[in-house]
Amino acid sequence: MQVDVISTVNEARSDDFIQKTVIVIDVLRATSTIVTALASGCSDIVPVETVNQARPYQGTDCLLGGERFCKKITGFHLGNSPAEYAAPEIAGKRIVLTTTNGTRAVHKAQRAGRLLIGSFLNAEACAQTAFSLNRDIVIVCAGTQDEFCLEDGLCAGLLLRYVRQYDEERTRTNDTGTAMLLAYETARERLSETLLACASGQRLTRLGHREDVLFCSQTNHFDLVPVWKEQALVRF
Amino acid sequence: MQVDVISTVNEARSDDFIQKTVIVIDVLRATSTIVTALASGCSDIVPVETVNQARPYQGTDCLLGGERFCKKITGFHLGNSPAEYAAPEIAGKRIVLTTTNGTRAVHKAQRAGRLLIGSFLNAEACAQTAFSLNRDIVIVCAGTQDEFCLEDGLCAGLLLRYVRQYDEERTRTNDTGTAMLLAYETARERLSETLLACASGQRLTRLGHREDVLFCSQTNHFDLVPVWKEQALVRF
Repeated sequence: MQVDVISTVNEARSDDFIQKTVIVIDVLRATSTIVTALASGCSDIVPVETVNQARPYQGTDCLLGGERFCKKITGFHLGNSPAEYAAPEIAGKRIVLTTTNGTRAVHKAQRAGRLLIGSFLNAEACAQTAFSLNRDIVIVCAGTQDEFCLEDGLCAGLLLRYVRQYDEERTRTNDTGTAMLLAYETARERLSETLLACASGQRLTRLGHREDVLFCSQTNHFDLVPVWKEQALVRF
Repeated sequence: MQVDVISTVNEARSDDFIQKTVIVIDVLRATSTIVTALASGCSDIVPVETVNQARPYQGTDCLLGGERFCKKITGFHLGNSPAEYAAPEIAGKRIVLTTTNGTRAVHKAQRAGRLLIGSFLNAEACAQTAFSLNRDIVIVCAGTQDEFCLEDGLCAGLLLRYVRQYDEERTRTNDTGTAMLLAYETARERLSETLLACASGQRLTRLGHREDVLFCSQTNHFDLVPVWKEQALVRF
Protein backbone atom coordinates (compact mmCIF):
# COMPACT_ATOMS: atom_id res chain seq x y z
CA MET A 1 0.00 0.00 0.00
CA GLN A 2 1.40 3.37 -1.07
CA VAL A 3 0.79 6.12 1.49
CA ASP A 4 2.04 9.44 0.11
CA VAL A 5 2.08 12.75 1.91
CA ILE A 6 1.55 16.02 0.02
CA SER A 7 2.82 19.04 1.89
CA THR A 8 0.38 21.75 0.70
CA VAL A 9 -2.94 21.90 -1.16
CA ASN A 10 -1.16 23.76 -3.89
CA GLU A 11 1.10 20.82 -4.65
CA ALA A 12 -1.85 18.45 -4.90
CA ARG A 13 -3.00 17.49 -8.39
CA SER A 14 -6.59 16.33 -8.21
CA ASP A 15 -5.91 13.72 -10.91
CA ASP A 16 -3.59 11.96 -8.49
CA PHE A 17 -6.52 11.26 -6.17
CA ILE A 18 -8.61 9.12 -8.51
CA GLN A 19 -9.32 5.65 -7.07
CA LYS A 20 -7.39 6.51 -3.92
CA THR A 21 -8.31 7.20 -0.31
CA VAL A 22 -7.50 10.84 0.36
CA ILE A 23 -7.15 12.19 3.89
CA VAL A 24 -7.32 15.97 4.25
CA ILE A 25 -5.60 17.47 7.30
CA ASP A 26 -5.93 21.04 8.54
CA VAL A 27 -5.17 20.62 12.23
CA LEU A 28 -5.40 24.36 13.05
CA ARG A 29 -8.29 24.38 12.79
CA ALA A 30 -10.75 23.28 10.07
CA THR A 31 -10.44 19.51 10.27
CA SER A 32 -10.27 19.52 14.09
CA THR A 33 -13.48 21.59 14.04
CA ILE A 34 -15.18 19.21 11.60
CA VAL A 35 -14.32 16.20 13.77
CA THR A 36 -15.55 18.00 16.90
CA ALA A 37 -18.81 19.07 15.26
CA LEU A 38 -19.62 15.51 14.18
CA ALA A 39 -18.70 14.26 17.66
CA SER A 40 -21.25 16.77 19.02
CA GLY A 41 -23.93 15.17 16.87
CA CYS A 42 -24.34 17.59 13.98
CA SER A 43 -26.09 15.89 11.06
CA ASP A 44 -23.52 16.89 8.43
CA ILE A 45 -21.10 19.59 7.37
CA VAL A 46 -21.23 21.32 3.99
CA PRO A 47 -17.83 22.86 3.25
CA VAL A 48 -18.01 25.80 0.85
CA GLU A 49 -15.10 27.71 -0.63
CA THR A 50 -16.33 31.29 -0.41
CA VAL A 51 -18.40 33.38 2.01
CA ASN A 52 -20.84 34.11 -0.83
CA GLN A 53 -21.47 30.40 -1.33
CA ALA A 54 -22.50 30.19 2.32
CA ARG A 55 -24.93 33.14 2.18
CA PRO A 56 -27.88 31.26 0.57
CA TYR A 57 -28.00 29.07 3.68
CA GLN A 58 -28.60 32.10 5.91
CA GLY A 59 -32.09 32.15 7.39
CA THR A 60 -32.44 28.37 6.97
CA ASP A 61 -32.10 25.73 9.67
CA CYS A 62 -28.37 25.47 9.01
CA LEU A 63 -25.68 26.92 11.21
CA LEU A 64 -23.11 29.01 9.35
CA GLY A 65 -19.54 28.74 10.51
CA GLY A 66 -16.09 29.74 9.39
CA GLU A 67 -13.28 32.22 9.41
CA ARG A 68 -11.23 34.61 7.35
CA PHE A 69 -7.82 35.61 8.73
CA CYS A 70 -8.57 33.39 11.77
CA LYS A 71 -11.62 35.54 12.67
CA LYS A 72 -15.35 34.77 12.66
CA ILE A 73 -17.25 36.02 9.60
CA THR A 74 -19.80 38.82 10.15
CA GLY A 75 -23.34 37.45 10.41
CA PHE A 76 -22.23 33.84 10.85
CA HIS A 77 -23.34 31.81 13.89
CA LEU A 78 -19.96 30.29 14.57
CA GLY A 79 -16.27 30.91 14.00
CA ASN A 80 -13.67 28.18 13.44
CA SER A 81 -12.94 27.34 17.07
CA PRO A 82 -13.49 23.63 17.82
CA ALA A 83 -14.73 24.67 21.29
CA GLU A 84 -17.74 26.41 19.70
CA TYR A 85 -18.66 23.14 18.00
CA ALA A 86 -18.56 21.15 21.23
CA ALA A 87 -21.80 22.84 22.35
CA PRO A 88 -25.13 20.98 22.68
CA GLU A 89 -26.84 23.35 20.16
CA ILE A 90 -24.87 21.62 17.42
CA ALA A 91 -26.76 18.34 17.73
CA GLY A 92 -28.93 17.50 14.74
CA LYS A 93 -27.91 20.59 12.79
CA ARG A 94 -26.40 20.92 9.33
CA ILE A 95 -23.32 23.14 9.42
CA VAL A 96 -22.14 25.18 6.44
CA LEU A 97 -18.43 25.83 6.89
CA THR A 98 -15.97 28.02 5.04
CA THR A 99 -12.36 28.39 6.06
CA THR A 100 -9.28 29.72 4.29
CA ASN A 101 -7.41 26.50 3.62
CA GLY A 102 -9.22 23.43 4.91
CA THR A 103 -12.41 23.69 2.88
CA ARG A 104 -10.36 24.44 -0.26
CA ALA A 105 -8.42 21.23 0.29
CA VAL A 106 -11.65 19.26 0.69
CA HIS A 107 -12.94 20.61 -2.61
CA LYS A 108 -9.72 19.83 -4.40
CA ALA A 109 -9.87 16.24 -3.15
CA GLN A 110 -13.35 15.47 -4.39
CA ARG A 111 -12.13 13.16 -7.15
CA ALA A 112 -10.84 10.76 -4.52
CA GLY A 113 -12.17 7.22 -4.33
CA ARG A 114 -12.91 8.03 -0.68
CA LEU A 115 -12.30 11.35 1.05
CA LEU A 116 -11.69 11.30 4.81
CA ILE A 117 -10.93 14.05 7.31
CA GLY A 118 -7.98 13.70 9.67
CA SER A 119 -6.64 15.55 12.71
CA PHE A 120 -4.82 14.64 15.88
CA LEU A 121 -8.22 14.38 17.57
CA ASN A 122 -9.23 11.37 15.46
CA ALA A 123 -5.83 10.18 14.21
CA GLU A 124 -6.04 6.48 15.02
CA ALA A 125 -9.67 6.11 13.90
CA CYS A 126 -8.81 7.87 10.65
CA ALA A 127 -5.73 5.75 9.96
CA GLN A 128 -7.64 2.54 10.75
CA THR A 129 -10.52 3.44 8.44
CA ALA A 130 -8.17 4.46 5.63
CA PHE A 131 -6.21 1.23 6.00
CA SER A 132 -9.37 -0.88 6.03
CA LEU A 133 -10.44 0.61 2.67
CA ASN A 134 -7.43 -1.18 1.18
CA ARG A 135 -6.52 1.35 -1.50
CA ASP A 136 -3.49 3.57 -1.87
CA ILE A 137 -3.68 6.58 0.44
CA VAL A 138 -2.79 10.22 -0.19
CA ILE A 139 -2.53 12.43 2.89
CA VAL A 140 -2.99 16.10 1.96
CA CYS A 141 -1.66 18.70 4.38
CA ALA A 142 -3.79 21.78 3.80
CA GLY A 143 -1.09 24.25 4.82
CA THR A 144 -1.67 27.99 5.06
CA GLN A 145 -1.77 30.20 1.98
CA ASP A 146 0.19 27.62 -0.02
CA GLU A 147 2.85 27.28 2.68
CA PHE A 148 3.59 24.08 4.54
CA CYS A 149 2.30 23.97 8.13
CA LEU A 150 4.16 21.92 10.70
CA GLU A 151 1.04 20.81 12.57
CA ASP A 152 -0.43 19.24 9.42
CA GLY A 153 2.87 17.55 8.60
CA LEU A 154 3.22 16.06 12.09
CA CYS A 155 -0.34 14.76 11.96
CA ALA A 156 0.42 13.18 8.57
CA GLY A 157 3.46 11.55 10.18
CA LEU A 158 1.28 10.10 12.94
CA LEU A 159 -1.29 8.71 10.48
CA LEU A 160 1.50 7.12 8.47
CA ARG A 161 2.95 5.68 11.67
CA TYR A 162 -0.36 3.93 12.43
CA VAL A 163 -0.68 2.53 8.92
CA ARG A 164 2.85 1.17 9.11
CA GLN A 165 1.97 -0.48 12.41
CA TYR A 166 -0.91 -2.28 10.70
CA ASP A 167 1.30 -3.55 7.86
CA GLU A 168 4.91 -2.41 7.96
CA GLU A 169 6.03 -4.79 5.23
CA ARG A 170 3.70 -3.50 2.54
CA THR A 171 3.51 0.19 3.47
CA ARG A 172 5.49 2.45 1.14
CA THR A 173 5.69 6.22 1.27
CA ASN A 174 7.27 9.13 -0.56
CA ASP A 175 10.15 11.23 0.81
CA THR A 176 7.77 13.82 2.28
CA GLY A 177 6.03 11.00 4.15
CA THR A 178 9.32 9.69 5.54
CA ALA A 179 10.32 13.21 6.62
CA MET A 180 7.02 13.68 8.48
CA LEU A 181 7.30 10.27 10.12
CA LEU A 182 10.81 11.12 11.33
CA ALA A 183 9.69 14.57 12.49
CA TYR A 184 6.72 13.15 14.41
CA GLU A 185 9.02 10.72 16.26
CA THR A 186 10.97 13.64 17.69
CA ALA A 187 7.92 15.81 18.39
CA ARG A 188 5.53 13.26 19.87
CA GLU A 189 6.58 13.66 23.49
CA ARG A 190 5.99 17.43 23.39
CA LEU A 191 3.29 17.83 20.81
CA SER A 192 1.34 20.69 22.35
CA GLU A 193 4.51 22.75 22.91
CA THR A 194 5.53 22.11 19.30
CA LEU A 195 2.12 23.19 18.03
CA LEU A 196 2.16 26.34 20.17
CA ALA A 197 5.59 27.23 18.72
CA CYS A 198 4.82 26.71 15.01
CA ALA A 199 3.64 29.57 12.78
CA SER A 200 -0.11 28.86 13.03
CA GLY A 201 0.14 28.17 16.77
CA GLN A 202 1.85 31.49 17.37
CA ARG A 203 -0.65 33.36 15.21
CA LEU A 204 -3.66 31.78 16.95
CA THR A 205 -2.14 32.47 20.37
CA ARG A 206 -1.69 36.14 19.45
CA LEU A 207 -5.37 36.24 18.42
CA GLY A 208 -6.49 34.77 21.76
CA HIS A 209 -6.98 31.17 20.57
CA ARG A 210 -4.27 29.46 22.62
CA GLU A 211 -6.84 27.02 24.04
CA ASP A 212 -7.74 25.93 20.51
CA VAL A 213 -4.13 24.98 19.83
CA LEU A 214 -4.00 22.90 23.02
CA PHE A 215 -7.35 21.28 22.25
CA CYS A 216 -6.30 20.40 18.68
CA SER A 217 -3.06 18.81 19.86
CA GLN A 218 -4.89 16.08 21.81
CA THR A 219 -4.30 12.72 20.16
CA ASN A 220 -7.24 10.31 19.69
CA HIS A 221 -9.72 12.36 21.68
CA PHE A 222 -12.57 11.20 19.40
CA ASP A 223 -13.23 7.84 17.81
CA LEU A 224 -14.87 8.94 14.58
CA VAL A 225 -14.00 9.64 10.97
CA PRO A 226 -15.69 12.25 8.79
CA VAL A 227 -16.22 11.02 5.23
CA TRP A 228 -17.39 12.84 2.09
CA LYS A 229 -20.83 11.67 0.94
CA GLU A 230 -23.32 13.41 -1.33
CA GLN A 231 -21.61 16.83 -1.15
CA ALA A 232 -21.30 16.85 2.63
CA LEU A 233 -19.15 15.43 5.42
CA VAL A 234 -20.81 12.83 7.62
CA ARG A 235 -19.68 10.18 10.10
CA PHE A 236 -18.13 7.18 8.36
CA MET B 1 18.66 35.58 12.46
CA GLN B 2 15.97 34.05 10.26
CA VAL B 3 17.01 30.69 8.78
CA ASP B 4 14.30 29.45 6.43
CA VAL B 5 14.24 26.14 4.58
CA ILE B 6 12.67 25.85 1.13
CA SER B 7 11.78 22.30 0.21
CA THR B 8 12.26 22.36 -3.59
CA VAL B 9 13.86 24.66 -6.17
CA ASN B 10 10.45 25.15 -7.66
CA GLU B 11 9.12 26.77 -4.49
CA ALA B 12 12.03 29.19 -4.37
CA ARG B 13 11.37 32.75 -5.55
CA SER B 14 14.65 34.33 -6.53
CA ASP B 15 13.45 37.70 -5.17
CA ASP B 16 13.43 36.18 -1.69
CA PHE B 17 17.19 35.69 -1.88
CA ILE B 18 18.24 39.33 -2.22
CA GLN B 19 20.60 40.45 0.56
CA LYS B 20 20.49 36.99 2.12
CA THR B 21 22.94 34.12 2.43
CA VAL B 22 21.57 31.26 0.34
CA ILE B 23 22.78 27.69 0.80
CA VAL B 24 21.98 25.29 -2.03
CA ILE B 25 21.80 21.60 -1.12
CA ASP B 26 21.67 18.68 -3.53
CA VAL B 27 23.15 15.88 -1.44
CA LEU B 28 22.67 13.18 -4.09
CA ARG B 29 24.80 14.23 -5.77
CA ALA B 30 25.61 17.65 -7.25
CA THR B 31 26.61 19.58 -4.15
CA SER B 32 28.51 16.63 -2.65
CA THR B 33 30.38 16.40 -5.96
CA ILE B 34 31.16 20.13 -5.98
CA VAL B 35 32.55 19.97 -2.43
CA THR B 36 34.63 16.90 -3.29
CA ALA B 37 36.02 18.51 -6.46
CA LEU B 38 37.16 21.62 -4.58
CA ALA B 39 38.65 19.42 -1.86
CA SER B 40 40.65 17.70 -4.62
CA GLY B 41 42.10 21.04 -5.64
CA CYS B 42 40.19 21.95 -8.77
CA SER B 43 40.50 25.67 -9.50
CA ASP B 44 36.77 26.33 -9.86
CA ILE B 45 33.49 24.88 -11.01
CA VAL B 46 31.28 26.48 -13.63
CA PRO B 47 27.73 25.15 -13.26
CA VAL B 48 25.71 25.31 -16.47
CA GLU B 49 22.05 24.47 -16.91
CA THR B 50 22.09 22.60 -20.23
CA VAL B 51 24.38 20.16 -22.00
CA ASN B 52 24.59 22.61 -24.92
CA GLN B 53 25.93 25.33 -22.64
CA ALA B 54 28.75 22.96 -21.66
CA ARG B 55 29.72 22.06 -25.26
CA PRO B 56 31.74 25.27 -26.02
CA TYR B 57 34.16 24.20 -23.26
CA GLN B 58 34.92 20.92 -25.06
CA GLY B 59 38.46 20.80 -26.40
CA THR B 60 39.65 23.40 -23.89
CA ASP B 61 41.60 22.79 -20.69
CA CYS B 62 38.37 22.35 -18.74
CA LEU B 63 36.99 19.03 -17.59
CA LEU B 64 33.33 18.49 -18.50
CA GLY B 65 31.19 16.71 -15.95
CA GLY B 66 27.57 15.98 -15.25
CA GLU B 67 24.63 13.69 -15.63
CA ARG B 68 21.19 13.28 -17.12
CA PHE B 69 18.94 10.65 -15.53
CA CYS B 70 21.81 9.85 -13.12
CA LYS B 71 24.05 8.82 -16.06
CA LYS B 72 27.23 10.35 -17.46
CA ILE B 73 26.74 12.51 -20.57
CA THR B 74 28.22 11.22 -23.85
CA GLY B 75 31.55 12.87 -24.63
CA PHE B 76 32.00 14.29 -21.13
CA HIS B 77 35.09 13.49 -19.05
CA LEU B 78 33.24 12.84 -15.84
CA GLY B 79 29.81 11.85 -14.53
CA ASN B 80 28.27 13.09 -11.29
CA SER B 81 29.88 10.61 -8.90
CA PRO B 82 31.83 12.35 -6.11
CA ALA B 83 34.33 9.47 -6.29
CA GLU B 84 35.35 10.56 -9.80
CA TYR B 85 36.16 14.01 -8.44
CA ALA B 86 38.38 12.68 -5.69
CA ALA B 87 41.04 11.79 -8.29
CA PRO B 88 44.42 13.61 -8.54
CA GLU B 89 43.72 14.64 -12.17
CA ILE B 90 41.21 17.16 -10.83
CA ALA B 91 43.86 19.37 -9.24
CA GLY B 92 44.23 22.77 -10.87
CA LYS B 93 41.47 22.17 -13.42
CA ARG B 94 38.34 24.15 -14.13
CA ILE B 95 35.28 21.89 -14.13
CA VAL B 96 32.16 22.64 -16.15
CA LEU B 97 29.27 20.83 -14.50
CA THR B 98 25.68 20.26 -15.54
CA THR B 99 23.24 18.18 -13.48
CA THR B 100 19.45 17.86 -13.51
CA ASN B 101 18.57 19.70 -10.31
CA GLY B 102 21.60 21.01 -8.46
CA THR B 103 22.98 23.34 -11.13
CA ARG B 104 19.45 24.70 -11.75
CA ALA B 105 19.18 25.56 -8.07
CA VAL B 106 22.53 27.36 -8.16
CA HIS B 107 21.40 29.47 -11.10
CA LYS B 108 18.11 30.33 -9.45
CA ALA B 109 19.97 31.50 -6.34
CA GLN B 110 22.30 33.94 -8.09
CA ARG B 111 20.56 37.00 -6.69
CA ALA B 112 21.64 36.00 -3.19
CA GLY B 113 23.85 38.30 -1.13
CA ARG B 114 26.14 35.28 -0.82
CA LEU B 115 25.59 31.86 -2.37
CA LEU B 116 27.13 28.85 -0.60
CA ILE B 117 27.05 25.13 -1.36
CA GLY B 118 26.07 22.66 1.35
CA SER B 119 26.09 18.89 1.79
CA PHE B 120 26.61 16.47 4.64
CA LEU B 121 30.27 16.33 3.63
CA ASN B 122 30.83 19.98 4.60
CA ALA B 123 27.82 20.62 6.86
CA GLU B 124 29.52 22.22 9.85
CA ALA B 125 31.92 24.34 7.78
CA CYS B 126 28.98 25.55 5.70
CA ALA B 127 26.80 26.40 8.71
CA GLN B 128 29.69 28.22 10.41
CA THR B 129 30.47 30.29 7.33
CA ALA B 130 26.82 31.15 6.77
CA PHE B 131 26.41 32.15 10.41
CA SER B 132 29.56 34.29 10.33
CA LEU B 133 28.17 36.29 7.38
CA ASN B 134 25.53 37.59 9.80
CA ARG B 135 22.62 37.90 7.39
CA ASP B 136 19.35 35.98 7.20
CA ILE B 137 19.85 32.54 5.64
CA VAL B 138 17.74 30.63 3.13
CA ILE B 139 18.51 26.95 2.73
CA VAL B 140 17.28 25.67 -0.64
CA CYS B 141 16.75 21.93 -1.01
CA ALA B 142 17.22 21.21 -4.70
CA GLY B 143 14.89 18.21 -4.77
CA THR B 144 14.36 16.03 -7.84
CA GLN B 145 12.16 17.16 -10.71
CA ASP B 146 10.29 19.56 -8.44
CA GLU B 147 9.73 16.92 -5.75
CA PHE B 148 11.08 17.15 -2.23
CA CYS B 149 14.06 14.87 -1.52
CA LEU B 150 14.56 13.54 1.99
CA GLU B 151 18.36 13.69 1.86
CA ASP B 152 18.31 17.42 1.10
CA GLY B 153 15.76 18.06 3.85
CA LEU B 154 17.78 16.16 6.46
CA CYS B 155 20.93 18.06 5.50
CA ALA B 156 18.98 21.33 5.85
CA GLY B 157 17.92 20.14 9.30
CA LEU B 158 21.55 19.53 10.25
CA LEU B 159 22.68 22.97 9.03
CA LEU B 160 19.88 24.60 10.97
CA ARG B 161 20.86 22.58 14.05
CA TYR B 162 24.41 23.97 13.87
CA VAL B 163 23.21 27.56 13.45
CA ARG B 164 20.93 27.15 16.46
CA GLN B 165 23.87 25.85 18.46
CA TYR B 166 25.78 29.04 17.64
CA ASP B 167 22.89 31.30 18.75
CA GLU B 168 19.73 29.49 19.86
CA GLU B 169 18.12 32.61 21.25
CA ARG B 170 18.13 34.60 18.03
CA THR B 171 17.68 31.81 15.48
CA ARG B 172 14.19 31.70 13.97
CA THR B 173 12.99 29.34 11.25
CA ASN B 174 9.88 28.58 9.20
CA ASP B 175 7.72 25.47 9.66
CA THR B 176 9.61 23.56 6.97
CA GLY B 177 12.83 24.29 8.88
CA THR B 178 11.36 23.01 12.14
CA ALA B 179 10.09 19.87 10.41
CA MET B 180 13.55 19.16 8.97
CA LEU B 181 15.23 19.81 12.31
CA LEU B 182 12.84 17.34 14.00
CA ALA B 183 13.32 14.79 11.20
CA TYR B 184 17.12 15.06 11.40
CA GLU B 185 17.02 14.36 15.16
CA THR B 186 15.36 11.01 14.51
CA ALA B 187 17.51 10.11 11.50
CA ARG B 188 20.96 11.17 12.70
CA GLU B 189 21.95 7.86 14.29
CA ARG B 190 21.24 5.95 11.09
CA LEU B 191 21.88 8.48 8.39
CA SER B 192 23.38 6.22 5.74
CA GLU B 193 20.55 3.67 6.06
CA THR B 194 18.02 6.49 5.77
CA LEU B 195 19.73 7.83 2.65
CA LEU B 196 19.89 4.39 1.08
CA ALA B 197 16.15 3.95 1.70
CA CYS B 198 14.93 7.30 0.31
CA ALA B 199 13.82 7.69 -3.31
CA SER B 200 17.13 9.02 -4.69
CA GLY B 201 19.12 6.50 -2.65
CA GLN B 202 17.11 3.62 -4.05
CA ARG B 203 17.40 4.91 -7.61
CA LEU B 204 21.16 5.40 -7.36
CA THR B 205 21.57 1.96 -5.80
CA ARG B 206 19.65 0.40 -8.70
CA LEU B 207 21.98 2.20 -11.12
CA GLY B 208 25.08 0.84 -9.37
CA HIS B 209 25.91 3.98 -7.34
CA ARG B 210 25.34 2.62 -3.82
CA GLU B 211 28.88 3.70 -2.84
CA ASP B 212 28.02 7.28 -3.79
CA VAL B 213 25.09 7.28 -1.37
CA LEU B 214 27.31 6.02 1.44
CA PHE B 215 30.02 8.55 0.60
CA CYS B 216 27.55 11.45 0.50
CA SER B 217 26.08 10.52 3.90
CA GLN B 218 29.38 11.16 5.69
CA THR B 219 29.04 14.18 7.96
CA ASN B 220 31.85 16.79 8.04
CA HIS B 221 34.24 14.82 5.87
CA PHE B 222 35.61 18.06 4.39
CA ASP B 223 36.30 21.41 6.02
CA LEU B 224 35.56 23.72 3.10
CA VAL B 225 32.73 25.79 1.68
CA PRO B 226 32.13 26.44 -2.01
CA VAL B 227 31.01 30.02 -2.67
CA TRP B 228 29.73 31.69 -5.85
CA LYS B 229 32.19 34.25 -7.21
CA GLU B 230 32.43 35.72 -10.72
CA GLN B 231 30.17 33.10 -12.33
CA ALA B 232 31.92 30.12 -10.77
CA LEU B 233 32.13 28.19 -7.52
CA VAL B 234 35.40 28.51 -5.62
CA ARG B 235 36.62 27.83 -2.09
CA PHE B 236 35.38 30.42 0.39
